[in-house]
Amino acid sequence: MSQTQPCIICVAITGSLPRKSDNPAVPITVAEQVESTHAAFEAGATIAHCHVRNDDETPSSDPDRFAALKEGIERHCPGMIVQLSTGGRSGAGQARGGMLPLAPDMASLSVGSNNFPTRVYENPPDLVDWLASEMLRHDVKPEIEAFDLGHIVQATRMAADGRLKGPLYVQFVMGVKNAMPADEPIFDFYIETLKRLAPDALWCAAGIGAAQLTVNEWSIAKGGHTRT
Amino acid sequence: MSQTQPCIICVAITGSLPRKSDNPAVPITVAEQVESTHAAFEAGATIAHCHVRNDDETPSSDPDRFAALKEGIERHCPGMIVQLSTGGRSGAGQARGGMLPLAPDMASLSVGSNNFPTRVYENPPDLVDWLASEMLRHDVKPEIEAFDLGHIVQATRMAADGRLKGPLYVQFVMGVKNAMPADEPIFDFYIETLKRLAPDALWCAAGIGAAQLTVNEWSIAKGGHTRT
Ligand SMILES: [Zn+2]
Ligand SMILES: [Zn+2]
Ligand SMILES: [Zn+2]
Ligand SMILES: [Zn+2]
Repeated sequence: MSQTQPCIICVAITGSLPRKSDNPAVPITVAEQVESTHAAFEAGATIAHCHVRNDDETPSSDPDRFAALKEGIERHCPGMIVQLSTGGRSGAGQARGGMLPLAPDMASLSVGSNNFPTRVYENPPDLVDWLASEMLRHDVKPEIEAFDLGHIVQATRMAADGRLKGPLYVQFVMGVKNAMPADEPIFDFYIETLKRLAPDALWCAAGIGAAQLTVNEWSIAKGGHTRT
Repeated sequence: MSQTQPCIICVAITGSLPRKSDNPAVPITVAEQVESTHAAFEAGATIAHCHVRNDDETPSSDPDRFAALKEGIERHCPGMIVQLSTGGRSGAGQARGGMLPLAPDMASLSVGSNNFPTRVYENPPDLVDWLASEMLRHDVKPEIEAFDLGHIVQATRMAADGRLKGPLYVQFVMGVKNAMPADEPIFDFYIETLKRLAPDALWCAAGIGAAQLTVNEWSIAKGGHTRT
């Protein structure tokens, strides 16, 4: 890792799935999320990866809830980068991008499809292109969620033809059942391929579940950024 | 390439998409497919990768049509390996595996999902597992269709836990828009990863469209089998 490049820590406070019944500490309401993010910000996190929930804790992509969360984080954590999720667990079709007109600093973007533990994570090409175009329009920096090697390649094609604005910021996601496991030679090849196809790209990595700390360690050791 | 290991040539006579209006030489009826396969067999092909069509040329997964095609190839091309497609263009859900009780020598099997030019190629985990179990039950050898690196890894996990019977036979597919392009470092890493995770596996490769000859050349040069 270059001595002058700081490691960016991204904190995912809530995610789309865990409930209070799984862990009472999971922040669900906007007020809880803001305070939890505030604590992480004071501990050194600089990006907040945000999901919102309905009152019954189910995942939501309601732009009004995202607006309240974004405003709360901006007030309590001045200078923190707000990244809103456009992930497929929280909505379907263009509803997944309904918060992009809020012009957050960043938003997550999946550019391909893959299997999840019990279903297909569907990101059809026309939806991917529409989300990317909304991010260009509202000057939102995408974090590319790469669940497989082909997603990294696809992101570099989209940057090359102008559908995404460079430099790319790509997150390698490992450890989801039926998708890519935490595998170090593959992790290394992800870095190598991204650098080959988009030399100015930055990357981070997230390990899901049991893979979390392993992937955090690889990211930091290999010069990337990381996700808690 | 080892001097003693012959290169297996698999011929895909028809595919699921091209029509007579695209190319009058595309064999559509069972009789046309049998004769076209017979010519390829005499030219040295040893596996016939088979799709069937309805009378209007649309893709089908009708077991009766597959039975007629299999019987014709077995009669005209004694010893040729018959591989039936369970691909998603020809049917949906378990209809994709309705021909497996015919107990062909081989059948294609996709073990993950990915994007195609205009849609998601959906292979949900429960369908993948059901198709694999039907192949075990009828002693059908799967050809794993790997459209991304994660599909190779998933196949090795399924072989390790008994959902697939080894040794694996994996086809790397490159050149489909929005999926993996023909990229030589990635091709080499596919081989390396497969050998690392399943040392006894065999592999072949298919380049789609403009990538066909390039991928054929890589396959032969690097010791794999190939698809016309
Ligand atoms: Zn998320
Ligand atoms: Zn606060
Ligand atoms: Zn096929
Ligand atoms: Zn004949």
